[in-house]
Amino acid sequence: MVDPLTFDSRLARILTVAAKVFAGKGFHPTTMRALSRETEMSLAGIYHYVSGKNELLYLIQQRCFSAVLAGAERALADGHGPADRLERFIRHHVGFFASHMSEMKVLAHEADSLDGVRLADINGLKRRYVDLLRTLVADLDDNSPKGDPQVAAYALFGMMNWIYTWYHPDGPISPDALADRFAQLFLSGVIAPSPSTAPQGD
Amino acid sequence: MVDPLTFDSRLARILTVAAKVFAGKGFHPTTMRALSRETEMSLAGIYHYVSGKNELLYLIQQRCFSAVLAGAERALADGHGPADRLERFIRHHVGFFASHMSEMKVLAHEADSLDGVRLADINGLKRRYVDLLRTLVADLDDNSPKGDPQVAAYALFGMMNWIYTWYHPDGPISPDALADRFAQLFLSGVIAPSPSTAPQGD
Repeated sequence: MVDPLTFDSRLARILTVAAKVFAGKGFHPTTMRALSRETEMSLAGIYHYVSGKNELLYLIQQRCFSAVLAGAERALADGHGPADRLERFIRHHVGFFASHMSEMKVLAHEADSLDGVRLADINGLKRRYVDLLRTLVADLDDNSPKGDPQVAAYALFGMMNWIYTWYHPDGPISPDALADRFAQLFLSGVIAPSPSTAPQGD
Repeated sequence: MVDPLTFDSRLARILTVAAKVFAGKGFHPTTMRALSRETEMSLAGIYHYVSGKNELLYLIQQRCFSAVLAGAERALADGHGPADRLERFIRHHVGFFASHMSEMKVLAHEADSLDGVRLADINGLKRRYVDLLRTLVADLDDNSPKGDPQVAAYALFGMMNWIYTWYHPDGPISPDALADRFAQLFLSGVIAPSPSTAPQGD
């Protein structure tokens, strides 16, 4: 019998290393043998945890989307009004992915690399997460609807998700400062009055 | 002797097909043999135009960034004031990539797949394009600076570039309507007054 705690923590470590390797070299060119080297485990050892590369990719995506969805729901629970809830969502999303930059790149680049039941499962999680943000945006916009909240939600996801191409969490801008700037841009725009004087919509 | 016009138009066709195949199946798994099938040219025929997959990827990126940079400079030339120039940039960027969705995905996913002189050349073009948008944002922000214009420029690129994951140019939202919505979001935010009453900064 394998101790379930050990099993899960070792699997989590394999997934973290695999996400780094997939982000660095790409999913397709990476072999299980390369992952064996990087994890310092035997091939047989890795196959004890997963059935292969596709299951690794699925588990990276499944755990990431589940964690970011559950974390966002927790972060929103104490929110006061639509603008505060949206700021909490942004702060949580940016904070989560600032400490999961490799996973973020893998989620963006390998969205099409799964199929069948696994793809359907991931797409279901994604849809719930997009729906959550769309509802937050629609709540904000209730008093003065200015367009499809789905488009605004995707615009905000783009602003936040594109950070995997340029942002360094250990650089001069902290994840919290970046989240604040995104919240301000999305709520009030680049030329609108500063947030203290802008209407807060709640 | 090969007719230079024919050479260039046939090369352009190869690049268009290659961008579609790279976007659909990924750059790494695609073979020159698969490109030969998709272009309906012999392998020898393709090698008459390019030295291999890496040169194809380089030429796709090089032509795309050169075209979008030159097009943006033309679009800005007649602009009146910072907000109008920014709107022109957004409209041009969204319009250009709405008709180059495959290339957009290839630019996003294969930014790391070049190296050496080719990578340096592409990075130089990218830097010029980012600098152009950063300057436009800084001009807007002159009267009331509210943060690093580089961060705001990357936020706007994220909003616009993420469309390759969700947007269908032939769907209900035209590229111009999408560009207008992005311009409004970026300039005035989701909860700010509508653009007709918001300060225009110029």
